[in-house]
Amino acid sequence: MAVSYLDKFFNPQSVAIVGATPKEGKVGRVILENFIKKFKGRIYPINPHYEEIMGLKCYKSVKDVPEVPDLVVVAIPAPGVPQAVREAAEKGVKAAVIISGGFSETGTPEGIRLENELREIVKTYGIRIIGPNGLGVFDNYSGVDTFFLPEERMRRPPKGYVAFISQSGAFASALMDWMAYHGIGVSKAISYGNKVDVDDVDLLEYLAEDENTKVILMYIEGLKTGKGRQFLEVARRVSRKKPIVVYKAGKTSRGALAAASHTAALAGEYGLYRAAFRQAGIIEVESFDEMMDVVRVFLHQPLMKGNRVFIVTDAGGVGVMLTDALTMAGFELPRTPPELKEELRKILPPHCIVENPIDLTGDTDDERYIRVLDAIIDKPYVDAVVVVALPQVPGIKGTYVDHLIKLKTQHNKPILAVTIGSEFSAKVAQRLEEGGVTVFESPERLARALRALYLYSMYRLKEEKQAQ
Amino acid sequence: MAVSYLDKFFNPQSVAIVGATPKEGKVGRVILENFIKKFKGRIYPINPHYEEIMGLKCYKSVKDVPEVPDLVVVAIPAPGVPQAVREAAEKGVKAAVIISGGFSETGTPEGIRLENELREIVKTYGIRIIGPNGLGVFDNYSGVDTFFLPEERMRRPPKGYVAFISQSGAFASALMDWMAYHGIGVSKAISYGNKVDVDDVDLLEYLAEDENTKVILMYIEGLKTGKGRQFLEVARRVSRKKPIVVYKAGKTSRGALAAASHTAALAGEYGLYRAAFRQAGIIEVESFDEMMDVVRVFLHQPLMKGNRVFIVTDAGGVGVMLTDALTMAGFELPRTPPELKEELRKILPPHCIVENPIDLTGDTDDERYIRVLDAIIDKPYVDAVVVVALPQVPGIKGTYVDHLIKLKTQHNKPILAVTIGSEFSAKVAQRLEEGGVTVFESPERLARALRALYLYSMYRLKEEKQAQ
Repeated sequence: MAVSYLDKFFNPQSVAIVGATPKEGKVGRVILENFIKKFKGRIYPINPHYEEIMGLKCYKSVKDVPEVPDLVVVAIPAPGVPQAVREAAEKGVKAAVIISGGFSETGTPEGIRLENELREIVKTYGIRIIGPNGLGVFDNYSGVDTFFLPEERMRRPPKGYVAFISQSGAFASALMDWMAYHGIGVSKAISYGNKVDVDDVDLLEYLAEDENTKVILMYIEGLKTGKGRQFLEVARRVSRKKPIVVYKAGKTSRGALAAASHTAALAGEYGLYRAAFRQAGIIEVESFDEMMDVVRVFLHQPLMKGNRVFIVTDAGGVGVMLTDALTMAGFELPRTPPELKEELRKILPPHCIVENPIDLTGDTDDERYIRVLDAIIDKPYVDAVVVVALPQVPGIKGTYVDHLIKLKTQHNKPILAVTIGSEFSAKVAQRLEEGGVTVFESPERLARALRALYLYSMYRLKEEKQAQ
Repeated sequence: MAVSYLDKFFNPQSVAIVGATPKEGKVGRVILENFIKKFKGRIYPINPHYEEIMGLKCYKSVKDVPEVPDLVVVAIPAPGVPQAVREAAEKGVKAAVIISGGFSETGTPEGIRLENELREIVKTYGIRIIGPNGLGVFDNYSGVDTFFLPEERMRRPPKGYVAFISQSGAFASALMDWMAYHGIGVSKAISYGNKVDVDDVDLLEYLAEDENTKVILMYIEGLKTGKGRQFLEVARRVSRKKPIVVYKAGKTSRGALAAASHTAALAGEYGLYRAAFRQAGIIEVESFDEMMDVVRVFLHQPLMKGNRVFIVTDAGGVGVMLTDALTMAGFELPRTPPELKEELRKILPPHCIVENPIDLTGDTDDERYIRVLDAIIDKPYVDAVVVVALPQVPGIKGTYVDHLIKLKTQHNKPILAVTIGSEFSAKVAQRLEEGGVTVFESPERLARALRALYLYSMYRLKEEKQAQ
């Protein structure tokens, strides 16, 4: 595939930063620092008031830079933005991230005029714009980082495989910080603000080809008018390769009204969105928790071949909770077949329950888990395994953890776990997560997240059959 | 009100522990240690093989104890249990907690026979039994603690105002550990196992009168046959005083089947339970998260007078998410009335949005929050306030936190907050929680929890009107 024009945004060799400044706390200072810290290419601060900033030679205009930079980042007051972008475009720059606010989102005639001017520049020169009025672009591999919040406000997540696109800048920053805190790795993040040019469709196509991106997460309030069909066509195509997880805000008419004040988005009829999402294989999540849960499952679990789940527990109550939640989420909890019952009877004390959910009871040790998991993991009627090993049970030393991770590595089946408790529980959860076993505190959240995996698996299966 | 017979379980002056032992890791050792550590009354270890255990004189039988202990705790193998309880009853003991398993839950004729024997002893002597096959009783004020898991396995929560009753022992232990980790204070906890005698109805009545209990939380799989009507009558009465939060397991027929294996509970028709819960003012929660969220709201928020919510945010996107979630949960988000708009325009920069959700935008500082909150808190059309102050916004220093806590103290209105992020966010959340402002990461969970408060408030209002 040809290199996308969007590559200039995410993987430039050189960048000019219009509005770079040495002044502490200013947006142009934070962005410059971000680049100095992480970006491997050439950096050109642009500011008519300085000869040099932070050890770098400073230029009065992009016109004066000794090369055509791949990317220009603009962080100056709105009235000066069109001129700065025009100068860059005239020099031959192909990509501009505009951080500045003060455009159509103000609702003022002046703001709208300035935004239309940007649109004209795109048409005239072919320069592409991300923004204005967003946090811009974050790429964890190339070091591009126009998110203008300092590290102590917004931690950066580790390198990883989630890309996200957010129509809300503040939510994007909160999500970055949250993912950093929870150790969820990010490849790219885009906050496109008023999306005068580059939009969801363009970004989806680009992220589909990005080898560092395994899951695409989107927060959207509304698509651009007339872009719906194209978005869905692209989404359907991308969904055949990797999951797209969407949180749609502005679902209710009251919420849509709030969205209109916020990003001037036309939130549209939610029912239509839902139906379209489903057709395109998009996984819709309905809460902040579900968003993060589903992402974690997609990052580590293989696709499912069917909807049959077996539970192995040391807590009968949590087994019942899970059975309810999984059943309500559309899963089948098969009764343990007679031959498996016989097999389990041989390896378990008589007071254990061999019916699914398999209950090892409160006097279990790690060994029982290991034996039972070995017995069930390969059975053709087991499409996923959920393990509950409440760490309050004294016999649990934690050796089952390594075994579970080994099974996860050796078998191409989703393995998830529930653990509820304090420090010990948190430690076990961390080890399991690192080993690819996705852990939940809540049986209900586990069931919802697994459902997303199942729905996506079925979409992929259907599409693959149709392609044959 | 007369002192309940159940007081002997929760507030005994003396206790005999049958099966006390010095052997490390044994149930009888953990329980004895629990009592030695925290219980202020007299302790009598009972074990024919020892003269003394952990510095306490040991007795061969409860019969030999130099007084009639208020409570006897039994932790010996099932076959010896009826005899031990009979001896205690003959001596005049009125309360026995039986920890031992090996009764009807085994499904064996012998287990069922032993359990029937216990039932006979209750009838014959009038001694009351909690158990068998449960963790028993935990009282954070008296120091009674028959939960036989050592502290390093199951942390004990701080003293507080949540009482819980759990039909699942393992879930009870996980919940204790979890609440300890999250700093949620507990008054009493009861794991009654097979509930051969004392049951949900008895415990509800008792907890209704307990001044250390503000919220009653229950995990139930099924009520005893024939006890449904009585349970609901009592629950209706108790709900007039304090909220009862119930998690019902065995909702689906597949889950009910699992419950039957687990506690032999007849999970019954879920639809009937739901309807009955609603009539009795019981707040039903449908997930583990919701359970803990609702408890936190009930602990700190006053009742609501109506369903009108105002949102103050620095993140438009989270404002939209909240608007959707609250609307879907049945709340009204009133449009900002003209006179309030005018008031807000005077105290806010022009780019802020004065429509509800009030959006202070990403350049806000603490002062804007303080001014806006002062303006809206007393308005008669504001029944609850939700504050979103995402800490990624550089202008937020945290001074709004103290102001929010002050408003919460001075005004009798629910105030809740959303914060999403990393360490700074967690710190702010902790300060707010300690000050009585309930904090959520997820807009959707906030809405669900506030809904529980609203439903309960309306139940109380209705009951008060009927009582007039």
